[in-house]
Amino acid sequence: MALINHQVRLAARPVGNPKRSDWNFTEEPVGDPGPGGVLVKVLQLSLDPAMRGWMNEGKSYIPPVGIGEVMRAGGVGKVVASSHATFKPGDYVGGGFDVQEYCLLDEGQAKRAGLHKIDLRMGSLSQWLNALGMPGMTAYFGLLETGQPKAGETVVVSGAAGAVGQTVGQVAKIKGCRVVGIAGGPDKCEFVVKELGFDACIDYKSGSVKDGLKQHCPNGVDVYFDNVGGEILDTVLTRINRKARIVICGAISQYNNTTPVKGPSNYLSLLVNRARMEGIVVFDWADRYPEGVKQIAQWIREGKFKSREDIVDGLNTFPETLNMLFEGRNFGKLVLKVADE
Amino acid sequence: MALINHQVRLAARPVGNPKRSDWNFTEEPVGDPGPGGVLVKVLQLSLDPAMRGWMNEGKSYIPPVGIGEVMRAGGVGKVVASSHATFKPGDYVGGGFDVQEYCLLDEGQAKRAGLHKIDLRMGSLSQWLNALGMPGMTAYFGLLETGQPKAGETVVVSGAAGAVGQTVGQVAKIKGCRVVGIAGGPDKCEFVVKELGFDACIDYKSGSVKDGLKQHCPNGVDVYFDNVGGEILDTVLTRINRKARIVICGAISQYNNTTPVKGPSNYLSLLVNRARMEGIVVFDWADRYPEGVKQIAQWIREGKFKSREDIVDGLNTFPETLNMLFEGRNFGKLVLKVADE
Repeated sequence: MALINHQVRLAARPVGNPKRSDWNFTEEPVGDPGPGGVLVKVLQLSLDPAMRGWMNEGKSYIPPVGIGEVMRAGGVGKVVASSHATFKPGDYVGGGFDVQEYCLLDEGQAKRAGLHKIDLRMGSLSQWLNALGMPGMTAYFGLLETGQPKAGETVVVSGAAGAVGQTVGQVAKIKGCRVVGIAGGPDKCEFVVKELGFDACIDYKSGSVKDGLKQHCPNGVDVYFDNVGGEILDTVLTRINRKARIVICGAISQYNNTTPVKGPSNYLSLLVNRARMEGIVVFDWADRYPEGVKQIAQWIREGKFKSREDIVDGLNTFPETLNMLFEGRNFGKLVLKVADE
Repeated sequence: MALINHQVRLAARPVGNPKRSDWNFTEEPVGDPGPGGVLVKVLQLSLDPAMRGWMNEGKSYIPPVGIGEVMRAGGVGKVVASSHATFKPGDYVGGGFDVQEYCLLDEGQAKRAGLHKIDLRMGSLSQWLNALGMPGMTAYFGLLETGQPKAGETVVVSGAAGAVGQTVGQVAKIKGCRVVGIAGGPDKCEFVVKELGFDACIDYKSGSVKDGLKQHCPNGVDVYFDNVGGEILDTVLTRINRKARIVICGAISQYNNTTPVKGPSNYLSLLVNRARMEGIVVFDWADRYPEGVKQIAQWIREGKFKSREDIVDGLNTFPETLNMLFEGRNFGKLVLKVADE
């Protein structure tokens, strides 16, 4: 029986929040892998703020998704057919599978998609998209290598309940820092403090972030890991310490702007405080992912670390599910379930 | 005969550009140095953009100048009376002498003012306020330690004809970089290229900085040393290379703002390019000034390095002379001559 692949393609470059009409749902028969090729049944896909940037025209750290192309996404899945030397049917794998049910890769494509085996004894499928996947690696290396937190310092992270934020905060706690999150709504804040063990969490929707920082960071801010940009970045800049490190990981508050990005008016605080603001892209640590995965998996096993995902079912919900990110409606790492095993 | 000291005091916190009415001219008799004290006749004062920040209320890297206090300034002068163990009458000295004709310091004040001997065989009085003084040290350590230019890289510096900019560019040239200045007007641009040996200089008053960067930085920008902030910083951000370093030294375009500082809208270029923006304050390298002075003096002696000052005569011209900085009317390091020797 020939398999049918359902796909979600970019139909138009969105203006502001992506709409359902910016997407095109297609189907086509699934081919067989040629020599060295591999066919993956996609099980779960990672939905990430960065995807919004890939939909825009223009130079970035990777080329934009072309109009008519299957939307780019990382995922986890199971090999269903293979003539590749490394991958056998039944193997669980991760890689750039895009928003579709089946991903057929020749040998070169498999390499470019970063196809790799995943070990479900180290973590679940969705954890491999979260703490053991890109968000986890972004948080782990971005915090430790660029943020360089020292024990006793105060680390603040925005998007604290999100995929990257939850790992940033937990790693910082393990490293002996005071950790203060910023998140939207009492449920997320409670989760971050009670479940993840942050010292405090500021609800940006219900009060002043500035007052929250004064209250919860009595010794100022040494490391700020920024996932949101906008007003929150500007506010944290007023509370940084001398030689503070600001890690620019994202700016989700600005991604659907139809007006120019709001630059941080308080950037001269960098001067006064001899502080640093530095951008990161996780791919730069690709050759060290195994080290990060091993460490986080060990912490999970030891009960020191939690990985929370918000799993939504169904490829056809992709447009609305993706937008949950921009509306702050996901609670934990947002995962799209495409199929059962 | 009792000496009379004329002083310029801060009368009001300026709104926008400082006005003459923001200053108060006073005179009082000069006292004698007590045990361990020293009396300096002020010869020349350094006028710097940073002085504008010291006039504002609020937390910065040093406290603001109080209303009624003699305006803070660094200077060079000659010891006229001393019971200090280190300093003898006739010694040439540098330090924080403030905007006045005579500076009387007790032993503790002498230390806090950073009183130090200067050797006029290494450079002239005005050079000791420029390449061998704070601007030179700011440029030398800020560029080398924070900018970390490598031979063959492209270094861009704004305020290129100014005190800090001229040293930044010349040091970068000596280190083997391609150096592109940004300055206002054809005279400054010509000076920077023909006299100081920059590879090119973009006149921000007569054309597009973006086009100038495209033309003169065909390989992008690796280090940007920013003295001006505002639109120019935002434009340079669009041209930076991967792992670029932006040194935030000042933001003269924003100092007299009566509206909020304009933050760099293009700061997400830091993310895309994994680049860094870092603030500097020269005092952090105070214990290494002798090393910087020795190196720059050697380059001057060898004919590899020029130090250009714009010297204006007369303590009573202070208000208007200071404002030359904010209007870009100084050509080289701005120095106020207070007295002949």
